[in-house]
Amino acid sequence: MEKLEKLYEGKAKKLYATDDPDVLWVEYMNQATAGNGEKKAQIEGKGSLNNRITSVIFDLLKARGVDSHFVRRISETEQLVKKMDMYPLEIIMRNTAAGSFAKRYGVEEGTELKKPILEFCLKSDALGDPFINEDGIVALGLADEDEIAEISRQARAVNAALLDIFAKIDVKLVDFKIEEGKTSDGAILLADEITPDTCRLWDQKDHSGKIEHLDKDLFRRDLGNIIPAYEEIYDRLMALAATEGVDSAE
Amino acid sequence: MEKLEKLYEGKAKKLYATDDPDVLWVEYMNQATAGNGEKKAQIEGKGSLNNRITSVIFDLLKARGVDSHFVRRISETEQLVKKMDMYPLEIIMRNTAAGSFAKRYGVEEGTELKKPILEFCLKSDALGDPFINEDGIVALGLADEDEIAEISRQARAVNAALLDIFAKIDVKLVDFKIEEGKTSDGAILLADEITPDTCRLWDQKDHSGKIEHLDKDLFRRDLGNIIPAYEEIYDRLMALAATEGVDSAE
Repeated sequence: MEKLEKLYEGKAKKLYATDDPDVLWVEYMNQATAGNGEKKAQIEGKGSLNNRITSVIFDLLKARGVDSHFVRRISETEQLVKKMDMYPLEIIMRNTAAGSFAKRYGVEEGTELKKPILEFCLKSDALGDPFINEDGIVALGLADEDEIAEISRQARAVNAALLDIFAKIDVKLVDFKIEEGKTSDGAILLADEITPDTCRLWDQKDHSGKIEHLDKDLFRRDLGNIIPAYEEIYDRLMALAATEGVDSAE
Repeated sequence: MEKLEKLYEGKAKKLYATDDPDVLWVEYMNQATAGNGEKKAQIEGKGSLNNRITSVIFDLLKARGVDSHFVRRISETEQLVKKMDMYPLEIIMRNTAAGSFAKRYGVEEGTELKKPILEFCLKSDALGDPFINEDGIVALGLADEDEIAEISRQARAVNAALLDIFAKIDVKLVDFKIEEGKTSDGAILLADEITPDTCRLWDQKDHSGKIEHLDKDLFRRDLGNIIPAYEEIYDRLMALAATEGVDSAE
């Protein structure tokens, strides 16, 4: 596989074309951002950790019947993925009230929700990724009703599988964000990344009731260095993969 | 019917108990507010106009098979309504992009939407009436899935009937807000008011393409006196009621 021209540079990843029109080359960067890019830092080791974490998560999901754009990891900081036509949506699943949800509705962070909540935001830095509902998505022509139904089904399946994965490594999956796209043959598929940048993960090993963040809230809220937390998540996921016989090597 | 103690004073209405436990006495006030109460004024004649406008609209809706909490108008500024247990929701229907929708998604005001959009907001002055989706409503215990389905069905039926009513008086129904509640015998029903305070109404008599507001945007945006606009809406609605043989007297 040959790495060709750069197609896109986001906040945490660079995407390159390859000699296969259906495959992209992804490079994970060390940049961390929060608050729609207002807060920014270079954190040594973050790119490598997120590349390895999302790879093993995609492998663990696949072992649970949940498919994604992931092809394979090719280095510490790089992976190959299927090229997708992305929906301009952030797809958020919430199991526990936290972050913008807790603030928006005046609910205490950590309150268990009566059912998992699926939310969509329109991906737009200029507009601050505004919350949107299904009628709004259809009315603005971002996806049709069948596509929304399939994206929703997949988001709930990803949540069920991730809840199983994280419960097995003593981590509470509070909420997470995914993105979805369409392959060249029209299949709707999970894309982007699943990492402590895009999930709220609370350690459950200490049963004192104190919330111990193993995710980007450490950076967002100036609670400490993210690297030991991300390493902890990676190590526990790799131990789970070994137990399950899931191979997540390059 | 006897007017008893005051139960509630909102931004535009006072509610009183009556000697019938299932009936409330509503008094429409002259107060106008905008921006979650940040802008406030007393406008002579507004209470009377809104009381008369919402009464004739409820009558016109009833003639179209759309029921509401409205019992009857009893004076220039007062009416009787069924007592309801209200859902803490603002239920918004949009046919054309305007206001918060246009701003939130960067869509030009006046853009026709591909389909009518139904939105919910959590009624909370303290939180600024935040946008909420159906999962959020269920998860916070504000209504269950069956109730949301019935509220949604009624909101779309109200929209269809109002589109017919306003088209007949040369007014474009851009968007509107309703509230719904439950009667003592458990029936879900349209409540609150339907007035130029709660609808965006654009005059279609002038075909120059210029937007002429016949609604509270005149006050919100300092575009002029609301009274002549509200009187125009009232007069046209009463002419329609006369044509249709709908009696909307006290």
